[in-house]
Amino acid sequence: MADEKNAYSFTTAATQQVTLRPGSAGFKMWRGESLPEVTLAYESWGELSPAADNAIIIFTGLSPSAHAASSAQDSSPGWWEYMVGPGKAIDTDRFFVVCANSLGGCYGSTGPISINPASGKRYGADFPDVTVEDIAQSGYLLMRELGVRNLHAAVGSSMGGMSSIAYAMQYPGEIDYLISISAAISALPLTIALRSLQREIIRSDPAWNDGQYDDDNKPLSGMSLARKLGLVSYRAADEWNSKFDRARLPTEKLTGKRFEHEFEIENYLEYNAQKFINSFDPNSYLYLSRAMDWFDVAEHGDSLESSMAKVDVRRALVVGVTTDILFPSRQQREIAELMRSTGTDVDYVEIDSANGHDAFLIDDEHFSPVVKKFLDES
Amino acid sequence: MADEKNAYSFTTAATQQVTLRPGSAGFKMWRGESLPEVTLAYESWGELSPAADNAIIIFTGLSPSAHAASSAQDSSPGWWEYMVGPGKAIDTDRFFVVCANSLGGCYGSTGPISINPASGKRYGADFPDVTVEDIAQSGYLLMRELGVRNLHAAVGSSMGGMSSIAYAMQYPGEIDYLISISAAISALPLTIALRSLQREIIRSDPAWNDGQYDDDNKPLSGMSLARKLGLVSYRAADEWNSKFDRARLPTEKLTGKRFEHEFEIENYLEYNAQKFINSFDPNSYLYLSRAMDWFDVAEHGDSLESSMAKVDVRRALVVGVTTDILFPSRQQREIAELMRSTGTDVDYVEIDSANGHDAFLIDDEHFSPVVKKFLDES
Repeated sequence: MADEKNAYSFTTAATQQVTLRPGSAGFKMWRGESLPEVTLAYESWGELSPAADNAIIIFTGLSPSAHAASSAQDSSPGWWEYMVGPGKAIDTDRFFVVCANSLGGCYGSTGPISINPASGKRYGADFPDVTVEDIAQSGYLLMRELGVRNLHAAVGSSMGGMSSIAYAMQYPGEIDYLISISAAISALPLTIALRSLQREIIRSDPAWNDGQYDDDNKPLSGMSLARKLGLVSYRAADEWNSKFDRARLPTEKLTGKRFEHEFEIENYLEYNAQKFINSFDPNSYLYLSRAMDWFDVAEHGDSLESSMAKVDVRRALVVGVTTDILFPSRQQREIAELMRSTGTDVDYVEIDSANGHDAFLIDDEHFSPVVKKFLDES
Repeated sequence: MADEKNAYSFTTAATQQVTLRPGSAGFKMWRGESLPEVTLAYESWGELSPAADNAIIIFTGLSPSAHAASSAQDSSPGWWEYMVGPGKAIDTDRFFVVCANSLGGCYGSTGPISINPASGKRYGADFPDVTVEDIAQSGYLLMRELGVRNLHAAVGSSMGGMSSIAYAMQYPGEIDYLISISAAISALPLTIALRSLQREIIRSDPAWNDGQYDDDNKPLSGMSLARKLGLVSYRAADEWNSKFDRARLPTEKLTGKRFEHEFEIENYLEYNAQKFINSFDPNSYLYLSRAMDWFDVAEHGDSLESSMAKVDVRRALVVGVTTDILFPSRQQREIAELMRSTGTDVDYVEIDSANGHDAFLIDDEHFSPVVKKFLDES
């Protein structure tokens, strides 16, 4: 019964879960609501040093789980397999690496599919508003539970990059090294529009039912369309030109039905959307997508500058990708320049990758040396 | 009753309609099907000269009607009001200017909302596949009906630019001057993906009903979402940065409902989508959208070069916009270079406009001088 109620909550032998201890008032959230209890799922690699000074937290983008890399407990490749492991850029021989499943997510952390203790039913759309700040706070409390106060590094890409910056502003002096990849000081209107439209597509699916859907009638059509739109924004036009150009599906795959898919690019989106929709909770998608729209460094102080001035790290690495249309490289330069102007020692690297916003997931060749160099010097 | 059956078929006092005379076999379409009869709607400005040598045809993008400019019959501003009129860049004191509503459209030309003579009912999704070539052919037959054989110029933007190129390839030597704005030799995979997704959003609306919807139950939700995605692709990120940044809706417009619109950019998309959905037929949208995916200059000969070599004009003007993400400027350079390499005298102009793909609709300041100079020298 419990399993059925949590059908989305994919946990494996490698998933660990802890109950956070935010204090007697519960988990107070950035936008004012609170959660009576929060469980956070995570995976870890490597060993915490006796001095507890070698810990790295990885914050994820919207959809990845805590399974950033394979391990003895779960040998399947993680979403950042090339980056995390013994001798790799994030070297698990040296560091105790923790990847947290975001609060509001669906891979074992408290989120919309969790049971609301007040009602005995799933939260659904009664889950409180989740922000990047809440994700950072849950990561902070997680590390406390693991016996870590001062982090060697906080690392994140996309939404995770926002979370690592939020962590640094919320807990000044408690991170030594900060890595932000393809993130933003705040979302641009185009990005808000793209995400708003994805959410609206899901909400327009009658099966969404104001967030109170059943496991046997989920808004999968809306999820599929939203995911396709996400995919379009995550990749770069030129990459698809060389990969697909105008290649057609083989004739035997065509039914002759009006408006059916004929081009390989259409098939590629369909394949990837179908892979995704049964492994992610639609409400989690809505909550985490909205969190990215809301994030704004300027809200952490009287101004953008006074907010970013709270960051107190030895050194920061900011990475942008030339072909990213969702979090364009000028937004990465903006982060780096703002950090510099407020007293942080910053390495800024712009990677000329063909893979757009998703480059950090794919482009081992360009990303590994950049992250490795930064952490080797740390 | 007829009005009711054609509720979308917005015609005004300025709309003229002619029955085309393609020959005894009916209107043979590029992909093999045929139409027993074709009516084309158009508007015209200026007077045809006695020698019938001053005619210009304007082909439209996906959604505009034939109402490119105001006239005595219809004083409302047209979609290209700044461009077409007495003394303007397309000077109606000098030229006889005809704007055609696309075959497959819903503003008076034969399309999915027309009655299928075979069944006595609307075609809906039984309408044959429409291509850019069919739109060019219908424009050609329209001009014959109007007493014109040799065109002074064919002008088009976006899909209309494709149509003007198709016209030039299909009727070599029958245009003197060719203007192609923000068009393409063929669509890129990113563009196909964006359009495919729009179509799928409409088709996923239960009210679409395989194209056989009623006037009182149209797939308006799907149309709204598709239009928003279109709008996102038509404009440029930076334009929205300066126009909206992260401006919020006033508090009194917020209901406190989870996931509601909070940012002005979301409101802008909603407003524009609502304006559109009741004035365009969803099936027309699907057909014309697909036509753009299919268009490929290379299909007009044994190769791209031999196809474009069919163009036989005195001079061509190709215009691109730096911020266009849908038909990027390198696709415009590609048209110009291919035309040059196959013997056409080409002016290529790249306009540094903030307005993205939609710039031709908005950016009078940059576009008028370019088109005026070209036509003044013609």
